[in-house]
Formats: sequence, C-alpha cells, structure tokens
Amino acid sequence: MELSIIKIGGNIIDDEHKLAAFLDAFAAVPGKKILVHGGGKLATRTAEGLGIHQQLVDGRRITDAETLKIVTMVYAGSINKNIVAQLQARHCDAIGLSGADGNAILSHKRTHPTTDYGFVGDVDSVNTSLLTSLLLLDKTLVFAPITHDGKGQLLNTNADTIAQELARSLSSGFSISLVYSFEKSGVLLDAEDDNSVISRIGPAYYQDLKDRKLVFSGMIPKLDNAFAALRSGVNKVIIGRAEELTQLLAGQAGTTITHE
Amino acid sequence: MELSIIKIGGNIIDDEHKLAAFLDAFAAVPGKKILVHGGGKLATRTAEGLGIHQQLVDGRRITDAETLKIVTMVYAGSINKNIVAQLQARHCDAIGLSGADGNAILSHKRTHPTTDYGFVGDVDSVNTSLLTSLLLLDKTLVFAPITHDGKGQLLNTNADTIAQELARSLSSGFSISLVYSFEKSGVLLDAEDDNSVISRIGPAYYQDLKDRKLVFSGMIPKLDNAFAALRSGVNKVIIGRAEELTQLLAGQAGTTITHE
Repeated sequence: MELSIIKIGGNIIDDEHKLAAFLDAFAAVPGKKILVHGGGKLATRTAEGLGIHQQLVDGRRITDAETLKIVTMVYAGSINKNIVAQLQARHCDAIGLSGADGNAILSHKRTHPTTDYGFVGDVDSVNTSLLTSLLLLDKTLVFAPITHDGKGQLLNTNADTIAQELARSLSSGFSISLVYSFEKSGVLLDAEDDNSVISRIGPAYYQDLKDRKLVFSGMIPKLDNAFAALRSGVNKVIIGRAEELTQLLAGQAGTTITHE
Repeated sequence: MELSIIKIGGNIIDDEHKLAAFLDAFAAVPGKKILVHGGGKLATRTAEGLGIHQQLVDGRRITDAETLKIVTMVYAGSINKNIVAQLQARHCDAIGLSGADGNAILSHKRTHPTTDYGFVGDVDSVNTSLLTSLLLLDKTLVFAPITHDGKGQLLNTNADTIAQELARSLSSGFSISLVYSFEKSGVLLDAEDDNSVISRIGPAYYQDLKDRKLVFSGMIPKLDNAFAALRSGVNKVIIGRAEELTQLLAGQAGTTITHE
C-alpha cells in the first residue's frame, strides 16, 4: 500500500496564504498520508511575548524547561490543531498527534559530552501498530515535532528526523514516498541557479556527481540522509518546494532520489 | 461494554501534586475510559504574560481571536500533551484529542441576541464511529475543551458540556458512568456541611428533596443536567471530588445519580 510522508517547514507555516495553498494540495493527495510539521516563528514570537530568553549554542536553540513549555503549546497546540481544522474543512480526515499520543514516538533525552541541549529527544522507536491502525481507519496523520520518553517527559524533536523515522519504521508495511519540503526547487547542479534542478538521482549518479565535485556541499548531508532512508526500506525520497507538492509527487518537479 | 467518562476541572489541573495523584487513580480505573479536562489558571497566566486583556461579560470570559489562540495552545497543547505523557508513564495508553482531530466533535459558533461570546462552540455532533474505533483499540481518550465547526474554525467549548455530549452520544454502544469532579464531596443536604453528602439520588427522591426545599439551589442545574444525561441513555452520573476517583466509581464516595 502506498503512503506519502510529507514534511513542511517554518517558511510554509509562517505564511497563511502559502499554508492554505499547500493544504489544498495536500488534501488532494490520493491514498494514505502523513504530514509532519516543524515550528516556524510563532514559537519565537510567543517566547519573546512572555519574556523568555532563547538560548542558542552554535546556532541551535537550547530547549530549556520554559522553552519546552512554549514549543509544546505552539507546535502541538496552536499549529497542529489549526492544520487539523484546516484539513477537516478540506474534507481530509486528519488527526493530530504528538509522539506521546498513543505512545506514537518514543525518544530519550539527548546526552552530549560538552553541550546540554536541554529537553531534546532522539528517537528510539515508532509505534507502527498504532499508526497502521489509524491509517487503515482512513485517517490522515499530522505530527507535531514533540515526542516523549515514556516516563512522563515531553521532548522537542527535529521534524526532519521524525519524518525520516516514521518513513523507516513504516516501510515494512507500506511503499513510502518521503517528501522533504525545502526553500529551493530541488537539488541544484548550480547552487545559484534555481533552474539547474537534478530531477532524479540514484546512488551511482550521486557518486559520480560527488567525484566530480558537482554537488553543492550544503546538500550533501540531505542527500546522505535520503540515501540512508532508501537503504532502510523507503521507496523514494523527494526534495523540493512545498508549493509544488502535486508536481513533486508526480515526479514533475523537485529531485527524486531513488534506488536506481 | 462499560465506559467511564471523567471530567476534571481547573482545581486539579493547577495543582501538580493533586494532578499526579488523580492520574494514578485514573490510570488504575479498569476498562474503557475517557478523560475530559478543563482549563485552569495557566490560560489566564499565559494571556497575562502576553499582555492580552481578558474580557468578561457577566462573569464569563469572552473568547476573542487572541484568547482562542491562547486556549488552543494551553488546553490542546500544554495541558493535553502533559496529561497524555503522564498517563503513558503510568502504562495507560492515552491519546489526546481536540474536537477537530478525526472530526471528533463538531460544533457551531454560538449566536446570542445581545452578547457576542466570540469563538465559543455549541456542540452539534460527536463522531461515535471514530471514538468507538479508538476505544476498541484499547486507547484511553483525553479530550481538551476545543472543538471545530468543520469549516476550519476552532472553537472554545465548555468541558462539562463536552463530557455530557460524549456520554450521551456513546450511550448507545456503551454502559456509561459519567463522573463530574467538583470542589465538594458530592451533593450536600447542608451546603455548609461537607459530611452531609447524599450518596444516591433517583428521580423520585430528587423530586421529594426539591419539594421539601432541601436541595441547595446552586446544585439544581447540575442535578437537572445529570438527570437529563440519564434520560438520554447514560447509565449513571457521579458527582464528587476528583481526589476520591476510585471511591466515586465504587459508589463509596460522592453522589451517584441513577434511574431508580
């Protein structure tokens, strides 16, 4: 059975019109589907409004106890429930989840030898039995990037990671297309030229591009992750603009990363 | 099949220790169960922190657009996900829902000839098919008092009303005990004496108490609602302290309102 797992980031969530257009396209995607959303600027604005100072280490936000409260409210409350209500209005029967709901995603608090990232969770397991049951009830799942440790602690977890872990875990029961939305049109041969999108990459072509130093270095971690997802059982990974979701899934836009 | 629907209010939610003790007892309740939680002071504190003025008309908070954002964040985000994580830690497989999730509770924006209550929803229907499916998957449901209108609008809805509508709608498939937690020990013969709890009331005894003016007038709306719930198919309604949940369900504390 086919399953589309689509991750959107802050650039879509922060723009009401872009979000509405994206949800129109998402609601129209046929078959089983999961949306994973990130945070966006609302968490920062809410924290600022409440006078909570955001600590950054090497450009990463540190999730202290107060920040965790904010991201739980904003991600799992505000953003998640608004997306669900908008999808229901489009006759897409969505149900919003955090990793704590139904023990959907279990994680542990990140430990690091020198940096305390605070309440950040690295994923341990996905409850594929629950998610499969909900998908078979024809529910569309909408994940907020919040998980739990099974001991009562909520944890902030990267949305890209959640999408990848869901895809990997569900790949034994579903043929999965994993879509990462992105600010560019796809993987570019020339980082400055948005028209230089590579439409399809398999492992051999990727190696060839790397050998010839034709891959923009910033793309290498994303592509390495995409190939890792394929090796773990995901059918294809697509990278491109959320605004072009329909075309991305049809292979008419963005970059499709495949086994061949 | 038996189903317990238990509503808790702000006095439990605002007190970390009371909430933990309540969740211990709730997790231990056998069989199918639903928890409906209200708001508590966190919404007011968050609104104050963000400098949002709370408008009251006749002692009722008016849900303007900014207040709706706050209650969605606090009720469906913070409180709901924290309760779910705490229940998971107690091996109670909880899943948190707003009325928008899976179109669980559809409502419409309240219209009133003279007062604009803002984004307040009066319940139209409950998706018993979804809720039954989730209960049959052995999930415990945790409802935040937020519903939706099916057109993309989230609405603030009274938690007592949500508990009652869930009980009424699910009564065709389940034998329902509906528990309203309360600041007093139950329905009192003497409003000043917490030891004067009436342990059991049926319609005839209630009429007799009313005729003899022995019911504290503040209890009459609650009791009328309880008898209305019984007439709509609910098996029994129990009113008492959340701290005594185990005893309430065993008929050893609080007031049980029954058909006889």
